[in-house]
Amino acid sequence: MTTPWSHRYAQRTKSVTSSTIRELLKLTQRPEVISFAGGLPAPDLFPLEEFETACHRVLSDAKAGPAALQYGTTEGYAPLREMIARHTARYGILAKPENVLITSASQQALDLIAKLLINPGDRILVEAPTYLGALQAFNVFGAEYVTVPTDDDGLRTDLLEDALRSGPKFMYILPNFQNPAGVTLSLERRRELVALADKYGIPIIEDDPYGQLRYEGDHLPSLLVLDRETHGIRGDDGYLLGNVIYLSTFSKTLAPGLRLGWIVAPPDVIAKLVQLKQGADLHTSTFTQMIAYEVARGGFLDEHVRRLRMFYRERRDAMLAALDEFFPRDWGVSWTRPQGGLFLWMRLPEGVDCRRLLEAAIKENVAFVPGDAFFAGEDEGRRYCRLNFSNATPEMIHEGIRRLAQAVQAQIEMGEHGEYAIHPPSPTLN
Amino acid sequence: MTTPWSHRYAQRTKSVTSSTIRELLKLTQRPEVISFAGGLPAPDLFPLEEFETACHRVLSDAKAGPAALQYGTTEGYAPLREMIARHTARYGILAKPENVLITSASQQALDLIAKLLINPGDRILVEAPTYLGALQAFNVFGAEYVTVPTDDDGLRTDLLEDALRSGPKFMYILPNFQNPAGVTLSLERRRELVALADKYGIPIIEDDPYGQLRYEGDHLPSLLVLDRETHGIRGDDGYLLGNVIYLSTFSKTLAPGLRLGWIVAPPDVIAKLVQLKQGADLHTSTFTQMIAYEVARGGFLDEHVRRLRMFYRERRDAMLAALDEFFPRDWGVSWTRPQGGLFLWMRLPEGVDCRRLLEAAIKENVAFVPGDAFFAGEDEGRRYCRLNFSNATPEMIHEGIRRLAQAVQAQIEMGEHGEYAIHPPSPTLN
Repeated sequence: MTTPWSHRYAQRTKSVTSSTIRELLKLTQRPEVISFAGGLPAPDLFPLEEFETACHRVLSDAKAGPAALQYGTTEGYAPLREMIARHTARYGILAKPENVLITSASQQALDLIAKLLINPGDRILVEAPTYLGALQAFNVFGAEYVTVPTDDDGLRTDLLEDALRSGPKFMYILPNFQNPAGVTLSLERRRELVALADKYGIPIIEDDPYGQLRYEGDHLPSLLVLDRETHGIRGDDGYLLGNVIYLSTFSKTLAPGLRLGWIVAPPDVIAKLVQLKQGADLHTSTFTQMIAYEVARGGFLDEHVRRLRMFYRERRDAMLAALDEFFPRDWGVSWTRPQGGLFLWMRLPEGVDCRRLLEAAIKENVAFVPGDAFFAGEDEGRRYCRLNFSNATPEMIHEGIRRLAQAVQAQIEMGEHGEYAIHPPSPTLN
Repeated sequence: MTTPWSHRYAQRTKSVTSSTIRELLKLTQRPEVISFAGGLPAPDLFPLEEFETACHRVLSDAKAGPAALQYGTTEGYAPLREMIARHTARYGILAKPENVLITSASQQALDLIAKLLINPGDRILVEAPTYLGALQAFNVFGAEYVTVPTDDDGLRTDLLEDALRSGPKFMYILPNFQNPAGVTLSLERRRELVALADKYGIPIIEDDPYGQLRYEGDHLPSLLVLDRETHGIRGDDGYLLGNVIYLSTFSKTLAPGLRLGWIVAPPDVIAKLVQLKQGADLHTSTFTQMIAYEVARGGFLDEHVRRLRMFYRERRDAMLAALDEFFPRDWGVSWTRPQGGLFLWMRLPEGVDCRRLLEAAIKENVAFVPGDAFFAGEDEGRRYCRLNFSNATPEMIHEGIRRLAQAVQAQIEMGEHGEYAIHPPSPTLN
């Protein structure tokens, strides 16, 4: 079916194809499927009563009620910006409210940053693997990529210098409990990364959606904080004039359905991003901003994050235990042991392909995201799977990992019998 | 102050400058200013109680509550898409829910359409004047413009054919109570426009945020409906395979603070826009979508729109009456008489410049948007002002127009005394 539109699509749309994650979420919505695919928070912990109370308070207030339904400023709801500035200050990110731009969640932050910085053909340095949504946001603006591998301590900084010499426009780094690999950049490597960024003059986008969800070990300083220390910048506006722009979100702490995130950046960058956001959506919902502020304030967010940490740690532990139980060592399967966040990353045995495994797994009523979705390069990642542990109960995790092990075992056996050649990749999973 | 970022901005950001409207809204927020500047709905009519009831119903429901705070699909909340499809069907736009994409209000619809269609240097045909936010959205993607003037019956279709011969990528048209001019495209011209679009194969983006806010006269068929009739397209999927994509929003009927709009388009266009929206913000807030659905359903939206029509008609009439009272005919000032919407458009006397007038008006504690903001060409519109009549009470409108007349009179007298040359345009108002 053709319409007068399809031959008029802009050049940039050629690089845009359907997101594996989003299409998969549709495939795995049958209730009998145990899904480790999405990055969904546990709905059991959504603070529904607090949201209801907040809605009542805001909407019944003679001043706040009408304001919540009216147009707002592009920069965001001032008390929310102040709260975020105070909150990040506890982690050493000494932003003022004027350094905070509220976005329609982190995905919009990535879109605005891509709009601001990427000319077609610009190389962006990303981790391999990296967050799929960032690749989607950057692709639209014609990004090309320089990739640096990760291991259990995050980005391989020993391989970074060569990559930096190729002149990337910026680096996009997820230092904490990285999506998809679940790994955390060690303190030593953070220092190396910041020093090399400074040496080559290549700035960093630090994406930190999961930083507060740490289940063990000590908080590590953000790249922004280390960069400031490196430069020794002081003074009223100095603390944000370094090499790092910082992103975070309420999606993993309060609720993703709000679509609320933020960018912390120097004033000149915020001013430019505000102009781009005006053209993109005028501003983020006043209503959700005011409700989120009302729910989060007075210490509730901190309490809530403490509950989330305990709750998700239990689920992470359940998944690690089930993996130890159902995946014999001699299969040659390995996985990361995340200190926080929502995901772990599994490496499949030689000869087992993640896409074929997914087809088999869906028949066993279990789902995950195939690893190749998270690589900027085309032929990487077919030996990996991303497994989410936040959305299913410990019992479901146990059963789901059992099913997954069955599917992996069958794939190993088929591989040994040379049956792969007759199974072409399914077009429905592209 | 320079940062490592400013010399890395992409080429496209050079065309992006601060929005006059948004900067002005800040200037005019002193409580003593009567502002005709924004396009703000009247907060008195926000259905606060219905919103509160809806929040209670959704959040206290065991299934709806968690769903409202969770991630959702990019396409939008299914019951809301169905409601919009039913609603637009009453106006002859026979869309199915699959033809409806929920956007983070109309501004995001414009951003996504620009992303989908505009290559740098593409010419877009716009009305002169046209909606400022559309120019902002299009500029980021390197749009250039072909403009066609408007008069009291909307776009001058007698001048359209020459403009179409220059090969624009698409036309962007606001047929009802246009922002900023408040004029409505006549039925005869709608037919001419659709026929010429067909003849030259140039598709149309029909932006209709105000269509339901008609205060007098009969509803005129949308361009999409006339296009369908022209093509005689029938059948299950046929009705949207023509030349027109249709946009609308809840910002003027329910509440702008929700940030909810929609695009009605053929399936291939929706599929591509969904991919672009995934990269832009994953999806629009599930929470606001479910609350809006809960408020609007069961006939409430229709009742509410009837109230809005009566209320805004009174304010429009108050502004027209005040203009007749305070602007003597011999000043040579004229204005449009909108049949609906939120704005009227004033033409200033020879020699009075809208930017200088605004400076003078702000000193008199009254504000408006200078007309040049609404033109794609650089040197147009300095003789025009946009006046909003929805946000102020009839009494305030009367007083505000009195103050504006004083400011205009002073400008006329200054012009006669040759004082303009010593007043350079204020840099703060660019």
